[in-house]
Amino acid sequence: MKQLHRKDLFGWSEFNNERNLDFHSVLWVREEGNVLIDPLPMSEHDRSHLQRLGGVSFIVITNSDHCRDAEHIAGNTGAAIYGPAGEEDTFPVFCERWIHDNEEIVPGLIAYQMQGSKTPGELALLLEYTTLITGDLIRSHVGGELCLLPEEKLTDVNQAIQSIKRIAELPGIKAVLPGDGWPLFNHGSEALHRLARSL
Amino acid sequence: MKQLHRKDLFGWSEFNNERNLDFHSVLWVREEGNVLIDPLPMSEHDRSHLQRLGGVSFIVITNSDHCRDAEHIAGNTGAAIYGPAGEEDTFPVFCERWIHDNEEIVPGLIAYQMQGSKTPGELALLLEYTTLITGDLIRSHVGGELCLLPEEKLTDVNQAIQSIKRIAELPGIKAVLPGDGWPLFNHGSEALHRLARSL
Repeated sequence: MKQLHRKDLFGWSEFNNERNLDFHSVLWVREEGNVLIDPLPMSEHDRSHLQRLGGVSFIVITNSDHCRDAEHIAGNTGAAIYGPAGEEDTFPVFCERWIHDNEEIVPGLIAYQMQGSKTPGELALLLEYTTLITGDLIRSHVGGELCLLPEEKLTDVNQAIQSIKRIAELPGIKAVLPGDGWPLFNHGSEALHRLARSL
Repeated sequence: MKQLHRKDLFGWSEFNNERNLDFHSVLWVREEGNVLIDPLPMSEHDRSHLQRLGGVSFIVITNSDHCRDAEHIAGNTGAAIYGPAGEEDTFPVFCERWIHDNEEIVPGLIAYQMQGSKTPGELALLLEYTTLITGDLIRSHVGGELCLLPEEKLTDVNQAIQSIKRIAELPGIKAVLPGDGWPLFNHGSEALHRLARSL
């Protein structure tokens, strides 16, 4: 796995031919149990790296299109899967816990429900107030710039815009790590404000 | 390939198990002939993407450890390979042209020779004054931060530091695209100054 902008954050990626961008997953290493977010299938090399970093206790899935390899990894490791409360009725994977808006998932990891995306209540995760991890709604197709999921995929454009504006108001975000597209490791709030102004 | 921070710049990557980071290559699309920099092997998908974007006329190699798939790609496409003049005597690949310090390779692409790295005269390339493309000496092991090649690999630490300081003085660099490790699409000069100050 690749070191991200902090010593306790790692990521692994997979290039997607259809969209010409990388999909990403995040590992947060913490003494009280490591957290994976939207985990893609892992190579043997990354699995062994993960083991050396303490394995995994929790898997957070931001939306039903990002289940990826979560069920398989949970089956092999015993990790508990947490999913978005807004999708509880139709979620394709068994979740031990459903995450609501403004809920602290584990200490230091707060969930925000985004509205109007392609699924209801997609989660964006704020890690220790400075790192924003997003699912599908906030993404990056062009290096250094954030964008919105294409309009034809949104269920409600206005709600989506309001959700982005709410997230952009969170102060002091350094890094934005989208599930799809380029990560942005510095000046995250600046990029979120540019995105919000452009909508 | 992935769109970088400009519509005419693309990249493709390969995760390296040994270093736990991505290696990167850059494509610059231009009417007068596309340029590849330090090209890694391409997938069938990326080769066909490259063809749709106009193929390749020139391949620039920053140093002899970044020849990667250049010779093979040149063989298939007829592209001309340009290499660093400082390595002319020992370079492993035939080059049609040897690039010197401060030389304009094609209009808008200026080479700077870096000294003290693991090979003599490694090139850093400045594209239209705002995008710096580096080989091995300037890299990024931690998201959002640039670093120097590990000291044990340098042939002359002081020369390497002087080369970095010279590059950091170039005004108005927006993006830094290292051959090894995370790209940095915004506030490039700021990160170069942080690196220079840390040495």
